[in-house]
Amino acid sequence: MKSQFFVVLMAVLLAGGVCSAQSQTIVIEDFKPSTLNQPGKEYPMVNSQGYARFRIEAPLAQSVIVGLGGRGGTQLTKGPDSVWVGTTAGPLDEGFHYYHLTIDGGVFNDPGTLNFYGSTRWESGIEIPAHDQDFYALRDVPHGFVQQILFPSPSTNTSRRAFVYTPPGYGKDGNKRYPVLYLQHGWGEDETAWSNQGRANLIMDNLIADGKIEPFIIVMTYGMTNEIRFGGLRNFDIKPFQTVLVDELIPYIDSHFNTLADQPHRAMAGLSMGGMETKTITLNKPEVFSHYALLSGGTYAPADIKDMSKVKLIFLSCGSKERPEGVKNAAVALKEVGINAVSYVSEGTAHEFLTWRRSLYELAPLLFKD
Amino acid sequence: MKSQFFVVLMAVLLAGGVCSAQSQTIVIEDFKPSTLNQPGKEYPMVNSQGYARFRIEAPLAQSVIVGLGGRGGTQLTKGPDSVWVGTTAGPLDEGFHYYHLTIDGGVFNDPGTLNFYGSTRWESGIEIPAHDQDFYALRDVPHGFVQQILFPSPSTNTSRRAFVYTPPGYGKDGNKRYPVLYLQHGWGEDETAWSNQGRANLIMDNLIADGKIEPFIIVMTYGMTNEIRFGGLRNFDIKPFQTVLVDELIPYIDSHFNTLADQPHRAMAGLSMGGMETKTITLNKPEVFSHYALLSGGTYAPADIKDMSKVKLIFLSCGSKERPEGVKNAAVALKEVGINAVSYVSEGTAHEFLTWRRSLYELAPLLFKD
Repeated sequence: MKSQFFVVLMAVLLAGGVCSAQSQTIVIEDFKPSTLNQPGKEYPMVNSQGYARFRIEAPLAQSVIVGLGGRGGTQLTKGPDSVWVGTTAGPLDEGFHYYHLTIDGGVFNDPGTLNFYGSTRWESGIEIPAHDQDFYALRDVPHGFVQQILFPSPSTNTSRRAFVYTPPGYGKDGNKRYPVLYLQHGWGEDETAWSNQGRANLIMDNLIADGKIEPFIIVMTYGMTNEIRFGGLRNFDIKPFQTVLVDELIPYIDSHFNTLADQPHRAMAGLSMGGMETKTITLNKPEVFSHYALLSGGTYAPADIKDMSKVKLIFLSCGSKERPEGVKNAAVALKEVGINAVSYVSEGTAHEFLTWRRSLYELAPLLFKD
Repeated sequence: MKSQFFVVLMAVLLAGGVCSAQSQTIVIEDFKPSTLNQPGKEYPMVNSQGYARFRIEAPLAQSVIVGLGGRGGTQLTKGPDSVWVGTTAGPLDEGFHYYHLTIDGGVFNDPGTLNFYGSTRWESGIEIPAHDQDFYALRDVPHGFVQQILFPSPSTNTSRRAFVYTPPGYGKDGNKRYPVLYLQHGWGEDETAWSNQGRANLIMDNLIADGKIEPFIIVMTYGMTNEIRFGGLRNFDIKPFQTVLVDELIPYIDSHFNTLADQPHRAMAGLSMGGMETKTITLNKPEVFSHYALLSGGTYAPADIKDMSKVKLIFLSCGSKERPEGVKNAAVALKEVGINAVSYVSEGTAHEFLTWRRSLYELAPLLFKD
């Protein structure tokens, strides 16, 4: 329980104690509610260093553990008021984190915060403000819309859901047409991830307001990635999703939205397992997509590309806590054979959503350049 | 519990046995996962009689209670596998119900099902299939879109969220313009309620596909009703929300969507406390709205209406388990003075969402008739 030591140390310092030469962390008591809390909820809280503090009411429970804050999570302790409280042992990385509670051996969400679909379930989320958070902030700029659509899918015999970001001003001029980015979530997530935890719409609104990109449409649907839950990754078959995406969703989007409905104006990107899907589908269907992006989702090798004239951009990214050399080296190798390849490494982040928010922010200005 | 008698009778008839005088309920073991469960989750389950069964893993817990199924809820019992299970004491009303778990004295959601915003928090939801569920089912018909918009609100110094239902085909003909229904949630809920638990978009899609209505737009925003949490109903001030709705949202909608931007083509409806808001705002602003609807949300008296020529419709509804005489009598009184008033009573339902889904289904064909 490192944090208890910190608290003791702080108390000593405040009392006029002497600081030893040893490096010890002082937890600053400037905790504020996480920005993802449900309306009116104080906890969970986050301080300026990135520590998270939790408060859970379950007076008769024997054990409450927060699945966040290092191996084994953060074990809460019951106070004299019968409320469980605790602070992570160290600061968390900037950005969004999923977590859950384990209460008496059962897995539940923290009633204080909003839920986000990850790990094939709706999980609690917490936000550690990033030093560069302005790029995904809700600013006073014109906002695009996020539209929930239900498109017919004969191959799966149902209506499937997608979310479509249309930029500010979309539809005002009926003749104006836009390029489209098809943007995939990762394993365990679904079509809600990029607008909820990814804040893709706000990132786009801000880029457009700042004149950094020409507006385009983003389409986000469920990648059917979670069907492997019981089968394992090696059993994943891209065909069902490729059919939904290429044969059903894209024609629906092109007939219901003001799109530039051709290969040069169509991009595909995906994070993590959505990157694997992106790689497979773009290589299977070079006549459909011209811009490819893998966010913490692997790399392309020069030999993967059969017809280089069809590829306008390959964007590869990951967090600095992942394997940045992999994406850097892959981009170099692609450039050496004449492909327009770009790598990006998100500083100080791991396989989490701040990496992917930043990746979208870096990717968007590179898309659909003639 | 009339339905329990029917079940006993049916079981006796099927078995060819003799019916004793004593009433005993037989729970039919045809439980299926609730349609609102998270992907891949078996529990909670519902049977054909409307009983709900729960299964919660929390091996070290001392007490797990489901807040549903009558006074005191449903106390689960721990089985030999250390999993808590239980079935409601009787059948639940058809339709949607909010609930939560109380685990060792703390309030949490059931990890098996989706969450819905009610009681000023994200709560678990369960669906008892209604005999008339086709009207709100996801059918293979053209679907409208539900658009999340962020509109500027100078009066509250932020961007506020609303959801806008646009009917199938919206935008295809840039010259076609649509009437608008402003549709409010109840206390404890928010702008997500009408499309999530209310299924307003599917009700509209089905009505339009069946040729029962002319398409119109629905706008749903947060009614700021939950600010009274700490103040009490008597302290509720309509002004802040009326300003947001009338001075900020309506002009934004009229400038960003293809609306018929005049009083004859603008309606307001609300459920429960949203009905109270509807009544107050329509009476304050007769020049803005022409069609009024209160769903389990009170009534208008003839004396409330200052200029009858401006009111095209007053629709009053509730569930048969509420106070149906109130809405019926009020409609009669309004009709007697020459107002086009309609009352509707949802059979077998209480102050819950099936009442309001049905009310929307009955209301929509009455709106915007010339």
